[in-house]
Amino acid sequence: MSWVPVPADAPFGITELPYGIFRVGDERPRVGVAVADRILDLAGLARAAGFDAEIVEATNLNPFLALGPDAWAESRAILTSLLSEESARDVVQPHLVPAATATMSMPFDVADYVDFYASEHHARRLGEILRPGTPPLTPNWKHLPIGYHGRAGTVVVSGTEVVRPRGLHRGSGEQPVFGPSSKLDFEAELGWVVGAGSDGPVGVGDFGSCVFGVVLVNDWSARDIQAYEYVPLGPFLGKSFATSISAWVVPLAALEDAAVEPSVQEPPLAAYLQGPSAGYDVELSVELNGVEISRCPYASMYYTPAQLVAHTTVNGARLRTGDLLASGTVSGPDRDQAGSLIELTADGAEPLILGDQRRGYLQDGDEVVLRATARGIRFGEVRGRVRPALG
Amino acid sequence: MSWVPVPADAPFGITELPYGIFRVGDERPRVGVAVADRILDLAGLARAAGFDAEIVEATNLNPFLALGPDAWAESRAILTSLLSEESARDVVQPHLVPAATATMSMPFDVADYVDFYASEHHARRLGEILRPGTPPLTPNWKHLPIGYHGRAGTVVVSGTEVVRPRGLHRGSGEQPVFGPSSKLDFEAELGWVVGAGSDGPVGVGDFGSCVFGVVLVNDWSARDIQAYEYVPLGPFLGKSFATSISAWVVPLAALEDAAVEPSVQEPPLAAYLQGPSAGYDVELSVELNGVEISRCPYASMYYTPAQLVAHTTVNGARLRTGDLLASGTVSGPDRDQAGSLIELTADGAEPLILGDQRRGYLQDGDEVVLRATARGIRFGEVRGRVRPALG
Repeated sequence: MSWVPVPADAPFGITELPYGIFRVGDERPRVGVAVADRILDLAGLARAAGFDAEIVEATNLNPFLALGPDAWAESRAILTSLLSEESARDVVQPHLVPAATATMSMPFDVADYVDFYASEHHARRLGEILRPGTPPLTPNWKHLPIGYHGRAGTVVVSGTEVVRPRGLHRGSGEQPVFGPSSKLDFEAELGWVVGAGSDGPVGVGDFGSCVFGVVLVNDWSARDIQAYEYVPLGPFLGKSFATSISAWVVPLAALEDAAVEPSVQEPPLAAYLQGPSAGYDVELSVELNGVEISRCPYASMYYTPAQLVAHTTVNGARLRTGDLLASGTVSGPDRDQAGSLIELTADGAEPLILGDQRRGYLQDGDEVVLRATARGIRFGEVRGRVRPALG
Repeated sequence: MSWVPVPADAPFGITELPYGIFRVGDERPRVGVAVADRILDLAGLARAAGFDAEIVEATNLNPFLALGPDAWAESRAILTSLLSEESARDVVQPHLVPAATATMSMPFDVADYVDFYASEHHARRLGEILRPGTPPLTPNWKHLPIGYHGRAGTVVVSGTEVVRPRGLHRGSGEQPVFGPSSKLDFEAELGWVVGAGSDGPVGVGDFGSCVFGVVLVNDWSARDIQAYEYVPLGPFLGKSFATSISAWVVPLAALEDAAVEPSVQEPPLAAYLQGPSAGYDVELSVELNGVEISRCPYASMYYTPAQLVAHTTVNGARLRTGDLLASGTVSGPDRDQAGSLIELTADGAEPLILGDQRRGYLQDGDEVVLRATARGIRFGEVRGRVRPALG
């Protein structure tokens, strides 16, 4: 129990303790931890207690992330103690800022951004739509978690408006057509945030010592641009215009009770992808213009996050603080559990009914909000509104 | 003319004036400019002249790059004047460090790394090898410069040893095989370095105001890992273990006399890829264990560097200081002008003869050195030796 009151509509409780970067008014952005409907100002608290506040006065979480797992655990233990013991109340309370008065910024500087394709249900449906007449899963799919590098420089924080991208789409003949995407989509994902870097392969068992926590990700996708460009070297402009993440990074430590047995993986995987690694019972929800259109079960993902990290590094590639490894679209076995419009509407052919409106793909002005919970643990939302394409 | 003597075997003359990060012994790395067989210590010179040296005391070029085109031009004009006027000799000479005594480090922090596929000759040969029986160029190839994001965190400076990567390759049956790559290759490329960022589309005409200069790139590639993984989302582990760049960034301003008419582009491109943009008459050379095995004409590339930048940003993606846009393998029309072993040896089937040795792909201990000249303007080399795979 905590002495901090938790209003019914508070975005968090007292057990998530996610980290983010906030400011109030013209103040300098700094590290905060969300508690109920408040943000604990770690720099203010540290200074008041006579401690060095350099790491929590930073304008991004990278210095804190780089400290590594012992420091993360210690920080969480101290915060849990301060927020539960009545005796700490007078010291801590002056540094609790109402979250409603704060402006959030990017929680961390993204080093490299990798996006995976780890849901079998999503990969099958996409394969059927994009490569009709061929097997929906490519022959490699069940042998490795397929992934590609995305654009780190266009990862933006929740609340940032997203301008509809322009690009080349397939035309009626050989010549492509240039213009605004007419198939703008979202993708609901989880993104695993690397804290401590590594100079070589990270085994599945070392996941918890290098990954600090997790964000919600909306990997905005322009399906028409993507379909035209992606053979043979993969998605580029159909993805690189924007990727939105939640302002709050939920520590892995908060998800302990949500760890579940991973999906059955058959045929057996290579040794470097084997060993104990957990799935997570996280349910994502997608809201479009205020209407919930999908609930996506992360527990149904084929590959575990520990396998994504092991795969990324098995060739010797180093990890850096701030690397972001996104799961790929989280889609469950039923089509109404899909994390993208291309699946939910069969590439626009079967539009969703939202009150008096229909949506195949996103229209200008539309707002997408992703949320997630993991057995009571809440994630920060990812909110984004679509702005019209540039003139 | 300059008062600086240029020995016959000096790596540079007096007109390139490339920027890099050097140190001598235990000194802190800082900005230097290469002149003949010397490095001009800009921080030492600035301090001696009573100027603020913060930007040239940085451990990477990013603060200098961010200053933008007017400052780059001014810096070059001042350096040219100081190195040519006899009256400046006594002031400048004490700050010329013998290049042989210096250790070079990464010249800039790579923000996002994009690798293109802009040589038609390379794309055709790769298509024939990787997708036999289908047209070698995909239908989109002549309508847009195909590119993908690479791993910024594993871009390393010339001289860094490269460990042979391990990964999954195609086996005899459905099950892939895990092990060290047996098809380790190089790719000879040029990499365009973004100086001033941009928040929206950069037209082909604005290339010179956002791109500062160019490096030589060896985009090491594990062909067996790449072939197994790259469908449908593009190359990942087959590339992400290492990408080597030259320690010296040659300013665009030094390449003015090497600008040439670009290749004929037919069918016509979309409007955003049109407008005046130059090719460059740069000849790359590839040396393997001391034997020159290829000379690759950059002037034969299909897409110009200005088109690569325009394409990367047409969807609204911003550019950041330190973005690296690599050309893709530079391969000429003749097979002995190819910038990769997969082309030079027909995927290993026709090994090169190097004295008493044969090479289909790279063996442990092999050393690859890339060099380039552009009508007398010299580039810094990229040197890398292959180390055996991890245990």
